[in-house]
Amino acid sequence: MRDFSHDHRWLSINTATVRNQRGQPWPLPRILDACAARGIRAVAPWRDQVAAAGLAATAAQLKALGLALSGYCRGGMFTYTDDASRAAVRDDNRRALDEACTLEAPCLVLVVGGLPGALAGRPAHRDIERARTQVAEGIAWLLEEARARRMPLAIEPLHPMYAADRACINTLAQALDLCDALDPGGSGALGVAVDAYHVWWDPQLRRQIERAGRGPVSRVLALHVCDWLVPTTDLLEDRGMMGDGVIDLPRLRGWVEAAGFAGYSEVEIFSRANWWQREGGEVLDTCIERHRRCV
Amino acid sequence: MRDFSHDHRWLSINTATVRNQRGQPWPLPRILDACAARGIRAVAPWRDQVAAAGLAATAAQLKALGLALSGYCRGGMFTYTDDASRAAVRDDNRRALDEACTLEAPCLVLVVGGLPGALAGRPAHRDIERARTQVAEGIAWLLEEARARRMPLAIEPLHPMYAADRACINTLAQALDLCDALDPGGSGALGVAVDAYHVWWDPQLRRQIERAGRGPVSRVLALHVCDWLVPTTDLLEDRGMMGDGVIDLPRLRGWVEAAGFAGYSEVEIFSRANWWQREGGEVLDTCIERHRRCV
Repeated sequence: MRDFSHDHRWLSINTATVRNQRGQPWPLPRILDACAARGIRAVAPWRDQVAAAGLAATAAQLKALGLALSGYCRGGMFTYTDDASRAAVRDDNRRALDEACTLEAPCLVLVVGGLPGALAGRPAHRDIERARTQVAEGIAWLLEEARARRMPLAIEPLHPMYAADRACINTLAQALDLCDALDPGGSGALGVAVDAYHVWWDPQLRRQIERAGRGPVSRVLALHVCDWLVPTTDLLEDRGMMGDGVIDLPRLRGWVEAAGFAGYSEVEIFSRANWWQREGGEVLDTCIERHRRCV
Repeated sequence: MRDFSHDHRWLSINTATVRNQRGQPWPLPRILDACAARGIRAVAPWRDQVAAAGLAATAAQLKALGLALSGYCRGGMFTYTDDASRAAVRDDNRRALDEACTLEAPCLVLVVGGLPGALAGRPAHRDIERARTQVAEGIAWLLEEARARRMPLAIEPLHPMYAADRACINTLAQALDLCDALDPGGSGALGVAVDAYHVWWDPQLRRQIERAGRGPVSRVLALHVCDWLVPTTDLLEDRGMMGDGVIDLPRLRGWVEAAGFAGYSEVEIFSRANWWQREGGEVLDTCIERHRRCV
């Protein structure tokens, strides 16, 4: 297991962590500058932020600053109600792939979607198995597009509390079942993003991470870290800084590294009441310190 | 599958559903009277409510009203930090068993506990596997006490969002693994409570319910219903009335009945902003109507 205690060379910042300081959005260029100024070597930007800053300009800034990506946020949302919405989903995912290629991301992260319409508060039906079938079909389709571009896809299982509206893939076992079905050879074209917040509770966690490491190439394409607070006061925007909650992050990282993952540890914290209320530089400095001590 | 559309003979009310109307607690005697007045045949009372009303008085009132229990809420909270807290947990569970016997409950429902101290916001450690081991030991111990009293124990897997502070048993598979380990013969002394809110998202749901029905006696000892709202605005107290959310309750009930369950469908709704703000009689009337139409 790598020693993180002396430097932060394996730290990446998911840009949502500092996007919304005191209700004042930090635009992506400012975030990238602030990361580079601290010797942070990688980021994971969101598509809306990239769109606002401009794709070419973002690619140029990343190159100028020497910043790599730990992943691109995000493709997915595969569930649909009719042919038109399915076509729109596919177009959008094709664009996400192209952007990921332009930014030289190591993978496109997939948040697969829940019941269609649920995120807007109007679920079209209650059949989560139908949604899961659509997700499998969507990933199968996208995988061909992704192979043609040599851009790996990382399925991110989300916590079961997001099953209805954000992602009906809710365990690593489920995500790895899809990988086995769609990429049986383990080519590296399809894998998983292991986000501590989403999977820490899973009684099968260790076993499934070991399974992810069994093929010719590790299926673990990304590692996201933050912490689960007690109490957690909001379903979406009350994630904790590493060390402030109950997740045994070093143990998780040990398992993931034993499964062949050797990339960045990406900090992704949505925190309306705490970290988003602080000065962005303070948040980044805290991420660096906690990455050394608690991850 | 039983037809619920013509009457509510298989409806039970978990008394938390109407305990806190407009911030004015309905005492248990009032809840029992209001249920009986509507032809509701069963309830699931909480220990604190029974303690407030008196155990003997509650038993007498239940008998006078002809009300059965669908379960007794609750034992468990098995995790501990030292010998003294373990002894206190055991004493408390022994009392819960005795109360369940006095009230002639069909089972004592177990919410097994999370990381010790986490419910009070001060988790003693981050080792969820250690907590799970303590839970297994606690249930093994309690099972002997329960067998002596012929009181079945129903392990209730809680939604993974409660893994840290309320229950580290989070899937039916996990609960059934414990049943298999501690009661391999499937005597009926140990089983599970299937709560739609906690398990609806589980990709293994159908398979595990089928597994629960495979032994000589069904392992399904209780069925709890409510609904998962989109959006859900609170981790604990924003449960929906059946029909208002995304859970396919009839499908779930079909699976549970195919697994041999033929008891009450118990409505348990914690709803600070909606149902707890209404008049209790209106809530009970709505439960009856939705039980017929949506369960």
